[in-house]
This record gives sequence, C-alpha cells and structure tokens, in this order.
Amino acid sequence: MTEIPKNLTVGPSVGEAGEHRLIALIRSLVPPAPPWVSVGIGDDAAVVEPERNKLEVLTTDVIVEGVHFDRAFCDPEAIGFKALAVNLSDLAAMGAAPRVALLSLGLPAAWPVADLERLLRALLALATRHKLVLVGGNITRSPGPLFVDLTVTGTCKRRRILTRAGGRAGDALYVTGALGAAAAGLAWLKLHGPAAPPEGPVRDAVERFLRPEPRLRFGVIAGRTQAASACMDLSDGLADAVRQLAGASGLGATLEAGALPIHPGATEILGEPSQILGAALSGGEDYELLLAVPRRRLRRFLAVHRLTKLPVTRIGVLTAEPDLVLQHENRQEPLPAGFEHFGEGPVPRA
Amino acid sequence: MTEIPKNLTVGPSVGEAGEHRLIALIRSLVPPAPPWVSVGIGDDAAVVEPERNKLEVLTTDVIVEGVHFDRAFCDPEAIGFKALAVNLSDLAAMGAAPRVALLSLGLPAAWPVADLERLLRALLALATRHKLVLVGGNITRSPGPLFVDLTVTGTCKRRRILTRAGGRAGDALYVTGALGAAAAGLAWLKLHGPAAPPEGPVRDAVERFLRPEPRLRFGVIAGRTQAASACMDLSDGLADAVRQLAGASGLGATLEAGALPIHPGATEILGEPSQILGAALSGGEDYELLLAVPRRRLRRFLAVHRLTKLPVTRIGVLTAEPDLVLQHENRQEPLPAGFEHFGEGPVPRA
Repeated sequence: MTEIPKNLTVGPSVGEAGEHRLIALIRSLVPPAPPWVSVGIGDDAAVVEPERNKLEVLTTDVIVEGVHFDRAFCDPEAIGFKALAVNLSDLAAMGAAPRVALLSLGLPAAWPVADLERLLRALLALATRHKLVLVGGNITRSPGPLFVDLTVTGTCKRRRILTRAGGRAGDALYVTGALGAAAAGLAWLKLHGPAAPPEGPVRDAVERFLRPEPRLRFGVIAGRTQAASACMDLSDGLADAVRQLAGASGLGATLEAGALPIHPGATEILGEPSQILGAALSGGEDYELLLAVPRRRLRRFLAVHRLTKLPVTRIGVLTAEPDLVLQHENRQEPLPAGFEHFGEGPVPRA
Repeated sequence: MTEIPKNLTVGPSVGEAGEHRLIALIRSLVPPAPPWVSVGIGDDAAVVEPERNKLEVLTTDVIVEGVHFDRAFCDPEAIGFKALAVNLSDLAAMGAAPRVALLSLGLPAAWPVADLERLLRALLALATRHKLVLVGGNITRSPGPLFVDLTVTGTCKRRRILTRAGGRAGDALYVTGALGAAAAGLAWLKLHGPAAPPEGPVRDAVERFLRPEPRLRFGVIAGRTQAASACMDLSDGLADAVRQLAGASGLGATLEAGALPIHPGATEILGEPSQILGAALSGGEDYELLLAVPRRRLRRFLAVHRLTKLPVTRIGVLTAEPDLVLQHENRQEPLPAGFEHFGEGPVPRA
C-alpha cells in the first residue's frame, strides 16, 4: 500500500489538493489487488483476467447531490456507502457475484479532502465485504453538485442469470425485507436534519435510506439454485418493479395491498395509511428484491430465505392478463406509478 | 429496433419526458446487439460473454459542462462524440480493441429531448465505427451541469498490453499527430463563439478540440506488434504524459523543445511562441499517443505509422537519470506541469 500523502487529510479542499494528489490518496486507501488484476489504479485503463466459464455482468449507477442525497443530512460515509450499494443491488438482482469496480467522482472544488477520505473509506469497506476490487476510475471537478458514479462488474454461470423477463403466468411474486423504509427515513431526515433518530424502527428506517444493504447473498443463491424465474431490485419502488418485471415477461400482475410487508418505521414516521401505502409502493430506494417464484421452485426459494435469514413475503402473482392490479380487501385499482428521479417524485413529505 | 416514441423528439424537455421514455428513446437508437450480448439495455444490468483467451481492459471518464465543455460553443453532437472519444483514447493507449460501453447521463431537467437525441446519435455513430456496443447505462436528473460519464471495456491478448510502466532507459519517445491543437481550438472558440472557423489549420484545430479522433488503430496495432515498450494518451497534455510514463517506468526523460510537432492551427491562433509551446506541452486534451520505442523496435514502429498513415514524431528519450528536462537549442529547463482539470489550468486565453 502506498502511504497516505502527508498533510492531505486535514485542511485542504479537493481543489487545492489537485487531481494527482487525490489519485494518490485513493491508491493509498485501496487494499492490494488480487493476482488476477494485471493493471490496477494508475494507468490509462485497468486490466483484468476474465473469470473462466462465466458470464460477465455490468452495471452503472450514479448518485447526485440534490437528487439522491443531501449533504445536510447524509454524511460522507453514507454517500460512499450508498453510491456502491445501489450498484451492488443491481448485481444482486441478476444473481451475479461482484468482481471489479470503477469509480468516477465529480467533486466541488471547495469540498474538504478529509470528507473525500471518509467517503472512500466507507465505499471501500463495503467493497471489501463483498469481495469487490476497485481497479480504476476518474476524478474531476464539478461546478455544481457532488456526484459519485460507479460501474461494477460481476460474474455468473450460464443459465444462472436472473433477468426480468423469465416470469411465467401463475408465478408467485415475493419481496425481500420490508417496504417504505427508505421513503419514510428520508421524510424523517427532511424534518429533523442530521440529528440521531430514536433507537428502534425509526432509526432502522433512516439507516435503510442512508445505508441500504444490498441483497447480494440472497440474489446470488437464488440465481445459483434457480429458485426464481425472474428478479429485479426496487430502486424505483415496488410498483415500478412489478410493472417492469411483468412487462419484460409479457405478463400482468395482481398485488395484494394487505400483504405488503410495511416497514414498522414507515408506519411510525408517516402515520397516515395512504401515505404509508404510497411509500411502500412508490417511495423508491428500498433496494429490496422482487422475485417471481414458480410453484415447483417454492421449496428451494424458501431454503434461500432460511439460509440468508432474510424475510420474504408473498405479495401477489403474475397473470396472463396484461393488467397491473392492486387488490384491496373489497376493491381493485390500477397499480400506481413508481418513483421518478426526474420529477419531484412521490416521496412523501412529513 | 424499438420505434422512437412518438412526439418525443421535438418539443419537450428531458424532465417532461421522464426516465422511462428517455430509456425507450435510447433503446430505439441503439443498433441490434451481437449474439455475445446475452442481456442488453433494459434489465438491472447487462450480461455479456467474455472473449476467450483475452485480457479485459476497463476505463471510465466523464465530461462535465463548465469543466470540459461549454454548451455555448459545443453542440450536442460534439458533446456526445467527445464523451466517448476520451474513453476510446484510454483503450488506444493500452492497445485494447473496444468491446462494450455503459453510459451514465446527468441531465438538466430543462434540456431539450431533441438535443439528447443529437448527442446520442453522434455517440452511437462513433461507437459503431469502432465496433463498440452500448449495453447499458443510467439516466438521472442533474440539478447543475450536464455530465456524460462512460465506462468502456476492451480486450487485448496477454503480453500485448501497452502500459505506462514498460519503458527502458534509451527508448525513444514518439508522439502521434500534432500538439497544441485542442488548447488553441478552445481559445478560438472562447473568442469567437460557435461561429464556423475559417477553413484550414484553424478549423482543424477547433475540430481537434470538439471531436478528437481517438488513435485506436494505432494503439491496437502498436500493441499487437509489440512496437512500443510503453504508451499513454495525452489527455492532460504532453508534459503530464511524459512525467507519468517516465515515473511509472522508474525513469526520467529529456524532451527536445524544437522537435515538438506543433499543430499549424496552434501557431495561427496563438501567435506568441511561448503560448504555442505552452499549449503543446500543457494545453491538454490533444488525445494523441505518447509511445516509448526501443531501438530494436523502431522498424516495426515505423511500419505501424505507414499502415495507419498517422504522423509520428521523435520528441525525446527516456533516461536512467530521474530528471524531467526540456532541452532548448542552447539551454535546459525542468519540464513544466500538465493540465489540471481541478484548477483553471494553463489553457491559454486568446
């Protein structure tokens, strides 16, 4: 490991430090690369040995200040964690095991180098935990918002990939974890700022917004064991995910409103039943997995649940009819739209 | 190919169109994927078959409005072209043949969809020309500048990779093309705005700034034939490239100021000899290649030059002495610094 450049971690802004010293800082924080990385950080490009007999999975996602996070209540650690977590969530949804990452940073010149270091340490800790290797990237000034753009790659055996398109009519729809936590956590932060939330469900919801744990182990095992026919993550909310997965599979879907596993923090923070349902369906950023499970695979699917100790809930079914229906106890309505990062979005305001 | 969504290409802003319709627009513009792409645009991640017996090369680079381009004099086509070209230039510097790209867009909500389409068409035309396949990406709102972030991958045979670290003392330093064109072209645009420059060297220089042709063929053939011991592109200027390549190889270097192939447009636009030399050394964004050529490989190297019809110029030598020296006719000085995207940088103002 390179030494951390002297006098860099306290005091100066990234603009004062300059590109080369920032790259030296990143190199000093990255753990030694495994032997299959032929060229790591510091050349024009990274060079790696592909994994034999595996398919390669690639995804990219960015988080932008003022759109995906607010520095007023997201500390640098949360920004670094989340930037990587949202990408790992995409790998999880494909059943792919993480391999390498490329990090592209757009930094306001006045941002403190010490905050960059905190962001990087959180990002790299999450990467290490998932055996992901940072092999390269890019760093530039941003005259506007801070943005953290990542590309991650993963690998998966042939015929073990989980796509959105494999669902069949009659497959049950399952979701991991609980819904509405991220939207409710964000609503709490908007109201209370960076104050520490009370312990319990509220803090859990805020944590779920700030540091969404990607469901990698669940996705990888579900893929390997072929326990699901289709999968997608809930980055833009459950309603959007159901719409996308059903659409890609050429099907419709019926969701049972009463079956949705509402996060207790969402109930406590939002209070109003319609707001709670809205957060669960369209709040976005829950980063749970939606999976279609054929009846004959249910036993395997529940084995994945037991192995990972991650709760799963049956919330509906894929239908040959192309309609997207939300079934209440005694009435039906069309499934609402998902979360749109382009608009203000339906994130509830507390 | 999907049809272009109706009523989308004229009139509305990207914010009005929304994420899903913009993704539909991108899908409609992307050519059909080759059979080795198992899952393309539209799932949580892309899935591709790796190329057998090849190393994989990965790089990422972003261009940001107000840092790398100005919408006042860069039309959407130039933005799209340049965003990809700077990434392909990194592959060229490694001797890697392009394979797939992931595109991450940060768009001001008020930006016209028609301009996005123009950007995409130019980007995709360049991709197709270099057999690069766009397999995925991401689109988000930016509350500040427009940014276009790309990750591209390429492939290369083992032991055919060109790194920065392979140079030996005594290797000659060569550069492709001509120097200072991009900085001079930018200076011209800052003075004259988007008016069409006069035909000839000035227009060539402006074109070189707006649409830098990546030296892919040269890099790939130089790598395949092992015609060079080390290589790097000139994204941050010649002085920076020489410093990086010599440093990575554990060497110093001497450059002959009088040997630098100055672009005639730089001479015409900048006039002052010191400004011209500054643009050639530290202007940045020339996206030519710097190569170290061992004496016994010179014949091969010149064969690459003849095959690609790209001019090459011997500009100096790698030295065992670690100093970085700029040799004038009758005096020496230390090599100046390169271009820094974090500061205002030494781009000359006309």
